[in-house]
Amino acid sequence: MFPRVVCSAVGGLSSVAALKSHGGLNSLSVKADECAKEPKYVGDVIKKKVGFPQPTACCKPLRFKDFIISYDSRNRIPNWVYEHLQYDKLFKDDPCDRRVKVERNQCASNEDKDRPKFTPDCRIHGYHRADARDYCDSDYEMGLLAQPENYPFDCEAFCECFTMTNIVPELPGFNCGPWFDLECYIREKLVRENKSVYVCSGPLFLPVTGDDDKTIKCYDVLGDGEVSVPTHFFKVIVIETHDGQLELESYMMPNATPEEGAEVKLEDFLTPLCQIEHHSGLIFFPEKKCFSSNNRRRGARLHAL
Amino acid sequence: MFPRVVCSAVGGLSSVAALKSHGGLNSLSVKADECAKEPKYVGDVIKKKVGFPQPTACCKPLRFKDFIISYDSRNRIPNWVYEHLQYDKLFKDDPCDRRVKVERNQCASNEDKDRPKFTPDCRIHGYHRADARDYCDSDYEMGLLAQPENYPFDCEAFCECFTMTNIVPELPGFNCGPWFDLECYIREKLVRENKSVYVCSGPLFLPVTGDDDKTIKCYDVLGDGEVSVPTHFFKVIVIETHDGQLELESYMMPNATPEEGAEVKLEDFLTPLCQIEHHSGLIFFPEKKCFSSNNRRRGARLHAL
Repeated sequence: MFPRVVCSAVGGLSSVAALKSHGGLNSLSVKADECAKEPKYVGDVIKKKVGFPQPTACCKPLRFKDFIISYDSRNRIPNWVYEHLQYDKLFKDDPCDRRVKVERNQCASNEDKDRPKFTPDCRIHGYHRADARDYCDSDYEMGLLAQPENYPFDCEAFCECFTMTNIVPELPGFNCGPWFDLECYIREKLVRENKSVYVCSGPLFLPVTGDDDKTIKCYDVLGDGEVSVPTHFFKVIVIETHDGQLELESYMMPNATPEEGAEVKLEDFLTPLCQIEHHSGLIFFPEKKCFSSNNRRRGARLHAL
Repeated sequence: MFPRVVCSAVGGLSSVAALKSHGGLNSLSVKADECAKEPKYVGDVIKKKVGFPQPTACCKPLRFKDFIISYDSRNRIPNWVYEHLQYDKLFKDDPCDRRVKVERNQCASNEDKDRPKFTPDCRIHGYHRADARDYCDSDYEMGLLAQPENYPFDCEAFCECFTMTNIVPELPGFNCGPWFDLECYIREKLVRENKSVYVCSGPLFLPVTGDDDKTIKCYDVLGDGEVSVPTHFFKVIVIETHDGQLELESYMMPNATPEEGAEVKLEDFLTPLCQIEHHSGLIFFPEKKCFSSNNRRRGARLHAL
């Protein structure tokens, strides 16, 4: 009915009129307030009446003492983990520096002193939370994206790395192989030689061509928590040099054990940022900050997109 | 070096002190401002220096004239589409109502008058945008989550349904089968008999147990745009009755063609909300609004979680 449509379109005003006739409103300013309470746009109506669906933690990154995590509540692993590494936090040259190195057993549980305790992240809804039990009886290790070795003198930050929202399933040969080499290269070369280093690490799910020539995405899922196992991982590294320049290096590595005896060269994993952005669904520098890319300078080989 | 650590920890103040010694600052208020510009928390440092990675459209839902979409830039399909359906917008009883029904050819392209034109959504970055060509030579149809038939008298909203951010790959037998039945049930039963209906539709990716007893997620990926094909779809429906009550019905359906001759009963697809929340990674009513669930009343069979 046409008149009813008109009526509903000015619902905000007519309800004010009704209130007015009951002597409840006296001023135009109140009338304006009342109008503001009756949203017109359908999105505002939905938001007010039932609310929008939200991934756990409301799209907001999770704060930790010395790093920050965007959590993927569908896959129960991070979207990305961002760290800011500086020479002074990682190394000590001064013999008078009384800081003491944290050992893994300082984060151990009471039950098993030899193993670090993986703590659940209570900010994540129970439906979307990974649990250490999900990793039992699987081929995968509990890989840490923010690395405790990046916080050697800070017990709190070191132990926070064992929070379940920082954990991803990694094959042991990958975790102790090229991924470990890349982490060491960042610490021992980039952090030592530069003012500071921003490191963003995260998972990727790449498609493959199946037997019937169809393109598919296929990956393992662990435990009752249904933790997705990424096919690849990325590291996007912004290097702040001592003269204040920002330089970029970006890597993509398969979550796979290298062939026995094969020589692993980090340069082989250098990958254009656009390729990582294409696969991850992320834009890394949305404010279009400019960096000179180190990939070409450092890399012997560059994959074309 | 310990002194360097201390220095960097109070970087905000020391830089102010340096400025002061150059005679640049005179008042405490300026000093406070300067402090505010030197963030201490690592997340703030990262955000200021390089910015956080963002999915396209910054987590914010995309606004359309009469519906709203949260876009999944990794899978190039919506996370969810929310519509608010009301009797007056869908039906006309009054013979004096001069609104005219929109026909699909009103959204047609100039090149092909018989087919509606699917328009790209320029708010999405080129890396993460699906294209109609991605669907060519595949087994899947371009399914519309916000249904044009829900906007029969509004040409703009009707045609906006053909925006690529509203499109999902659906098997023809599913799109024209149980999914269509559910859409008709919402329009012809729920909207006709109630004050209004809030409908949230979206994709799901469910795991299966593989040949080797491993649990995997496996789904088709279409075209160069790498559009993920959901294994299932959900509809979460909040019914606002004429006496102002809110009631909930929630469905999950496989993206599959029903067996030939099989009788499709909508009740068989009723699914507890918690199961949809578990699989989608979403919490539908984060503000914990209370609804009475219609599932039990309406459903002959309820899947246990």
